[in-house]
Amino acid sequence: MNVEDFLRTHPRRSGDLDVLAACVKACFGCAESCTLCADACLGEEKIDTLRRCIRLDLDCAEICAATGAVVARLTEPDAQVVRAQLQACIAACRACGAECERHARHHEHCRLCAESCRLCAEACEALARTI
Amino acid sequence: MNVEDFLRTHPRRSGDLDVLAACVKACFGCAESCTLCADACLGEEKIDTLRRCIRLDLDCAEICAATGAVVARLTEPDAQVVRAQLQACIAACRACGAECERHARHHEHCRLCAESCRLCAEACEALARTI
Amino acid sequence: MNVEDFLRTHPRRSGDLDVLAACVKACFGCAESCTLCADACLGEEKIDTLRRCIRLDLDCAEICAATGAVVARLTEPDAQVVRAQLQACIAACRACGAECERHARHHEHCRLCAESCRLCAEACEALARTI
Amino acid sequence: MNVEDFLRTHPRRSGDLDVLAACVKACFGCAESCTLCADACLGEEKIDTLRRCIRLDLDCAEICAATGAVVARLTEPDAQVVRAQLQACIAACRACGAECERHARHHEHCRLCAESCRLCAEACEALARTI
Repeated sequence: MNVEDFLRTHPRRSGDLDVLAACVKACFGCAESCTLCADACLGEEKIDTLRRCIRLDLDCAEICAATGAVVARLTEPDAQVVRAQLQACIAACRACGAECERHARHHEHCRLCAESCRLCAEACEALARTI
Repeated sequence: MNVEDFLRTHPRRSGDLDVLAACVKACFGCAESCTLCADACLGEEKIDTLRRCIRLDLDCAEICAATGAVVARLTEPDAQVVRAQLQACIAACRACGAECERHARHHEHCRLCAESCRLCAEACEALARTI
Repeated sequence: MNVEDFLRTHPRRSGDLDVLAACVKACFGCAESCTLCADACLGEEKIDTLRRCIRLDLDCAEICAATGAVVARLTEPDAQVVRAQLQACIAACRACGAECERHARHHEHCRLCAESCRLCAEACEALARTI
Repeated sequence: MNVEDFLRTHPRRSGDLDVLAACVKACFGCAESCTLCADACLGEEKIDTLRRCIRLDLDCAEICAATGAVVARLTEPDAQVVRAQLQACIAACRACGAECERHARHHEHCRLCAESCRLCAEACEALARTI
């Protein structure tokens, strides 16, 4: 499934879809990373210090999934809703990414998730600049 | 299922849970209203003028569901994430509520949904003032 | 937000909505209970024995939310999809409810969640018998 | 974000992850396709005959997203829940894929979505045979 090819088939597409497609892909990818990281943390022997990581993973997973869907819809969008949700996604990715980064040396899943969060925050910022 | 009773059983609850519980209930209630309104609109004979309503219902349903979960979690919350998501929820409820209001005279489900959106925006604003 | 009143405004409603509305309410209520129980478990000092409970709470929350939406939609439903999703919801509620029951004596949130799971499984079974 | 690489970092991974990773990717990919197809259908001029397609897209998107998350979690899974949710996902993908197929000649997004549904049903069937 290629997001960019799919968006090109939309009856109401307009302009350059590159920045948009990159954001949609980053949001859905980060939602997946956070879902997997939360579960990997839950399976770690020393779970006590990972509570905040699990919690922020769950927040970030839901926020990224909602943002990806809101951004991907091209029929009659509301710019204020899109902008506000992008800002929430950036905040969630920054908070989750910073927490994951703290565990990145001990847990490879946290390192991978921090990377997804960083990419998603950047893709949301890039899209926010265009709308 | 009573949200307030449930939150009182949380090991990390603190302070007055009334405003919080009201916001959680309003978010989950609005997510349900928007899901049902989108489907009722989809079933209306004259669907052409309801496209924007369906689209905003879908946005608002996902944003409210994510917000309700983020707000309801009391373990290690991140205030910036909570605040940003509340702002996104207020924007979604205002946009969706205004669109539903336009169809309220012809469609009772839009009238009910506009009411859910208004209550949810107010509950999010009330909670945002406390954090 | 009253699910039953809302379903009565749907242009394609048919027959007795009582069993349907009860199932929709139970699914959304159980999704909320499981979301709150997962977070309450995550905040407990002795988290080690609660891993399975958190995991099943997360599964059950997502499955109940999806089931509630699928069941609540009255426009052009597919009976096989509805039936299969109801069976998945019953399985999730049984597994999660049984695990929560094991912790009910020590954690009031697990007791409340077990009760939500039991009610949701029953409501899904009642609806499944009618379609 | 590479699902397979991510699953390999999980503390409780076991055995061959190929079939599992293929199913997770197919579920999340199909959830995205169905979300985009629903919105593209909503934007088509002749929307009247696409109601059932939009409705099944919404069902399939939520069911696939829930299934992907349930399947991807490796900490303390419940085989009966996984199996039942896989069956629900297969039913949703078949129903949605068949409806999309009917519109594939006129709408490229429906053709792409039908393909995602077919791949997802097959990946779920392959995983179901192993558990």
